[in-house]
Amino acid sequence: MSNIRLVEAKLPTGFRFHPRDEELVCDYLMRKVALTDTFQLMIEVDLNKCEPWDIPETARVNSKEWYFYSQRDRKYATGLRTNRATTSGYWKATGIDKAVHSKGTIVGMRKTLVFYHGRAPSGTKSDWVMHEFRLQPTFSVSTFKG
Amino acid sequence: MSNIRLVEAKLPTGFRFHPRDEELVCDYLMRKVALTDTFQLMIEVDLNKCEPWDIPETARVNSKEWYFYSQRDRKYATGLRTNRATTSGYWKATGIDKAVHSKGTIVGMRKTLVFYHGRAPSGTKSDWVMHEFRLQPTFSVSTFKG
Repeated sequence: MSNIRLVEAKLPTGFRFHPRDEELVCDYLMRKVALTDTFQLMIEVDLNKCEPWDIPETARVNSKEWYFYSQRDRKYATGLRTNRATTSGYWKATGIDKAVHSKGTIVGMRKTLVFYHGRAPSGTKSDWVMHEFRLQPTFSVSTFKG
Repeated sequence: MSNIRLVEAKLPTGFRFHPRDEELVCDYLMRKVALTDTFQLMIEVDLNKCEPWDIPETARVNSKEWYFYSQRDRKYATGLRTNRATTSGYWKATGIDKAVHSKGTIVGMRKTLVFYHGRAPSGTKSDWVMHEFRLQPTFSVSTFKG
C-alpha cells in the first residue's frame, strides 16, 4: 500500500490526495530535486523497466490512479529527447504541453502521454494515460569570461 | 474557519476534502439524519435566511466551495415542494436530478440549482451554483389493517 493511502486511511471520509498541478511541481517535485521531500509519500519508478500494469502497489492511490517520481532517460547521450520505451511498448506524447503556474510564474510543464503496445510508429494505442510534470527552471547560473 | 479546513491544515500538501457523491449521502447525510455524525465537519445553514454570499465562513472549504447541511422548508404545509427563496432571490433547479448509487442501490439524489436575483419568474441568473443531495429511502415502514 502507498504512503498516500496510509495517510488517507486515517482521515474522515472524503479526504483524499487530490493535488493541484502547482502543488505537484512546487511541493513535491521541487522538494524531491532539492532533497527536502520530507513527506516521503511517493516512490521512484523506472518507466523504462516497468510496464504500466506493473507499476508497484506502493505507488497506487486508488483503483485507477498512481503517483510516483521518475528520472527521464535520455534517448541519445548528446540529445535532450527522452526514451520512453518499455519492453512491450512505449509512451507517446499527445496534445501540447501545458504550463504550470505559481504566483504568476511558470514553474513547470505538464505533458500528457498515452501508452502504445508494440514499436513506433506502428504501435497500438492503449487506455493508459500519464501526466508527466517537469520543472521549468526560472533561474540559471551563468559565468562570463572576457 | 470550517472544521474541514482545520483537518486539511494538518495534512501534507495535496490532501483535501474531495468527497464522492456516494460519500456525501452515505457517510454524511445518513449519519446526520441518524444522529451518528461523529465527524462533526459541517454546520447547518438555513438557506431561506441566508443569501449565497452570506454563507458562514465555518462552512467554507476553499475560495469557491462551501459544504453544509440544510433542512428543506416546505412551500405549502400540505405539499412536497420546497421553498428555496431568500430575501433577495431564489434557488431554481436546473437539469434533471441525478441518482446517487452505493453498492448497486440508489441511496440518494443530486439536484443542481442556480441562484437568481429577484423574484420568479423574472429573476436574473447569477453564477452561484448549488448541488443538493437528499436521501432516497430504500426502506419504508408500512402498517396494515384488515
